[in-house]
Amino acid sequence: SGSPQSALIIHAGHMTSVQEVNPAVRRIRAPTRLQDLAIPITDEILQRLKTEPLCACHHCALSQVLAACMYPKLLEEKSLPLDVRQRAQKLLGACGGGSVGSYSATPTGIPLVHKSIAEFIERRDCGVSSHQDHIILSSGFEKILWMVLHLMSNGEGQTQTGLLTPVPCPQTVPMLLDVSWLTMVPYQLKEDRGWALDLDELRQALETGRRHCEPRAIFISNPGNPTGHVQDRETIEEVINFAATEGLVLLVEEVDQESVFGQDKEFFSYKQVLFEMGQKYSEMVELISFNALSGAKMGECGLRGGYMEVINMDPAVKTYLRNMQATSTPPVLPQLALEVMVNPPSLGDPSYETYTNIVRTQTTLSQNAHRACEFLNELPGMSCQPAMAGTFLYPHLNLPPQMIEKAKTLGVEADVLYCQKLLEEEGVCLGPGCENGQDDQNYHIRLSFLVPPVILEDLLLHLRSFHLRLLEKFP
Amino acid sequence: SGSPQSALIIHAGHMTSVQEVNPAVRRIRAPTRLQDLAIPITDEILQRLKTEPLCACHHCALSQVLAACMYPKLLEEKSLPLDVRQRAQKLLGACGGGSVGSYSATPTGIPLVHKSIAEFIERRDCGVSSHQDHIILSSGFEKILWMVLHLMSNGEGQTQTGLLTPVPCPQTVPMLLDVSWLTMVPYQLKEDRGWALDLDELRQALETGRRHCEPRAIFISNPGNPTGHVQDRETIEEVINFAATEGLVLLVEEVDQESVFGQDKEFFSYKQVLFEMGQKYSEMVELISFNALSGAKMGECGLRGGYMEVINMDPAVKTYLRNMQATSTPPVLPQLALEVMVNPPSLGDPSYETYTNIVRTQTTLSQNAHRACEFLNELPGMSCQPAMAGTFLYPHLNLPPQMIEKAKTLGVEADVLYCQKLLEEEGVCLGPGCENGQDDQNYHIRLSFLVPPVILEDLLLHLRSFHLRLLEKFP
Repeated sequence: SGSPQSALIIHAGHMTSVQEVNPAVRRIRAPTRLQDLAIPITDEILQRLKTEPLCACHHCALSQVLAACMYPKLLEEKSLPLDVRQRAQKLLGACGGGSVGSYSATPTGIPLVHKSIAEFIERRDCGVSSHQDHIILSSGFEKILWMVLHLMSNGEGQTQTGLLTPVPCPQTVPMLLDVSWLTMVPYQLKEDRGWALDLDELRQALETGRRHCEPRAIFISNPGNPTGHVQDRETIEEVINFAATEGLVLLVEEVDQESVFGQDKEFFSYKQVLFEMGQKYSEMVELISFNALSGAKMGECGLRGGYMEVINMDPAVKTYLRNMQATSTPPVLPQLALEVMVNPPSLGDPSYETYTNIVRTQTTLSQNAHRACEFLNELPGMSCQPAMAGTFLYPHLNLPPQMIEKAKTLGVEADVLYCQKLLEEEGVCLGPGCENGQDDQNYHIRLSFLVPPVILEDLLLHLRSFHLRLLEKFP
Repeated sequence: SGSPQSALIIHAGHMTSVQEVNPAVRRIRAPTRLQDLAIPITDEILQRLKTEPLCACHHCALSQVLAACMYPKLLEEKSLPLDVRQRAQKLLGACGGGSVGSYSATPTGIPLVHKSIAEFIERRDCGVSSHQDHIILSSGFEKILWMVLHLMSNGEGQTQTGLLTPVPCPQTVPMLLDVSWLTMVPYQLKEDRGWALDLDELRQALETGRRHCEPRAIFISNPGNPTGHVQDRETIEEVINFAATEGLVLLVEEVDQESVFGQDKEFFSYKQVLFEMGQKYSEMVELISFNALSGAKMGECGLRGGYMEVINMDPAVKTYLRNMQATSTPPVLPQLALEVMVNPPSLGDPSYETYTNIVRTQTTLSQNAHRACEFLNELPGMSCQPAMAGTFLYPHLNLPPQMIEKAKTLGVEADVLYCQKLLEEEGVCLGPGCENGQDDQNYHIRLSFLVPPVILEDLLLHLRSFHLRLLEKFP
């Protein structure tokens, strides 16, 4: 289908403009999480993009607030909504020195931000209390998880710390385990139950893991990245009970908590469930919950802002984490962005209208997820579980044995080969499932649907032609 | 001298407005690096501040560029200088997805920023070449140093990795060593020679260190934080030669490289000297040089942006550091700020005028340093070496033995007690030398002179009254 010279590269979080892509470069560049999606683009699509709203657009209120904090002369700029200017003024007042250029007002961050986050958590958890000093800010989810893993890291070989890790898991987790010298103890999620967590799998993984390392914690992604699964309350209770019995720490990535769109699906935080299970649990189980600006709701990946709430940790651990944080106070701007995230403009605020683009994005996401899932399930050799949240579909590939053989002779995983060929032949760039911790012959691809519908449609057509050609070639 | 209700708190990097300070809080709050300086303020000073320029003001060009990148509608705002808008446009074009909201274009950061930094280094080092892929970006000096220390961390007790560390050292270094499980191997700087590095001290420290740990690297701060000393070329050659002979890695913090104001003083980078010493050295000595937005030139502490240049490192180490970086791509805005730092507006650019506030700041800094040093040297029991760079003076305190005794009975260091009492009695907040790694009875205080002259003058008067009263009390 030719070698298109220009392509639309969809960046996690934000829509790019059309970029010239050198086909020679495209051929060798492996898919990365930074370009989860790239497709060649025609003039016709370009035209349609101009009239159809993008689903991942700038969140005007946030951009305006941060710009005004960065350049306070904008506080007098009447073209900015009044509530934006008032909020910028308030946030600047909370910054050390009244400026984003100073270190945070305290080593651990801006107190107002801690307070707003704790209040947000209380509202979310139907009143379960949250304490400011249990909130630790950081520059993004990965940085803060790494800090925690670094702290848990211990031993070598048989005595090395192990982390129970779902398969599939967020694609940065295997790399983080690697650089923290931790052993990954995989537990399989149940694809045939929409990627639900299964307690027997978890139990069996722990048993197996204890034979070759020292598992100390369970990592959980809920809503699941890249599965889009939303855990139900009973599962969460089971997992908490299991962690309590086995003395394991719970590390829960809840970055997509505000982007659940599956019908009758509801997000429950591990924290809320833990506290509603009674004192026996709520005073004992060690829990760290992670949230970040890079979730599907905000999609602000480039700012690198996140926080964790730390429950029942040994005071020494909390002190260590706080000291770690204090050695390099968190950047100021992402903290301000977190404040906007947990305190969005309300109905009636002048900036509410632009901010609700985010709500419209949710609707588009939900429709995209539904449409793509149906489409993929109609392809031979492909099956896809519906996503209930987040931005990914994670379809299963039933690849021809000859192709798997070929990949072996080339020394790459078959899903990587699939993605490379797709990129080469159609200019479409998706992520291979092996990046999500899958190292058996259970092949998947990762497809972000955080794109305008017109792009999604085109992408699916490219994927279909490639996929059908592949099946013809390896019958 | 009463208990003033309002105080001017000077934040590292930026000037604050007057803040209400509750005296009760002030009494118990220990000085921290986040508030290196706080003084009570009268209406008269407030008036004078309005007419005298602050020396630590916003760098308009930088603020404007970042605001326009954050909120691209400003690209059309005619009130912003043309070169600012052009630069913002160019930087946005270099961002993944043309937006600061996306992850960096590559896992290791924005290629344009790497390129600009490498070119800056080449210009600085009189043509010694610098390679883009030796530049690793990070969110601030401390984060990136911690990453390196974490990598070097090894062993326990006798086999624990040691770091040769100057005394005094930047105040975050002891804490970083602590959280990285490294042993500090102190080497004394020569106060009577303006805090010069002395090779015999270094050699002796290494010998002593080898008896109780495994020293693997030398940490150097040049220009010195908090001493303001600028190393001469001969010293740098000696240190490099010593590192080569002993097989030690050089970790060189050069954050204040662009703020040398001492007469006849010139900054030489370790990199330049290393390469001018010939291949025997330039192909062997392992060197990491650190630079950051938080230096005296930019003073942009809240953005948290920095980079390191990595020379002669084992490829595996470089890969590890790059992977570490890639697990959490660096925040986008600080990268853009680094680009402005290494490529400031030139003469003729519309924004040059505002940007040269930085140059004016240097003049004020130099005058402040000179004035404060003279003043302090006139006080009995105090002696101060002149600062040649940076933002600190670090005077020696000759404290009365009775006061040292009193501190002992209270269980605090005498310099901490000095600072606490100064804060309590005069509302002036300075940093105690023990935070800079000094744990012997060699007492110092750390005084930032990055303030408007009127404030400095007032501060010195407060300090003098307190100091003289103290000497009267403990004759």
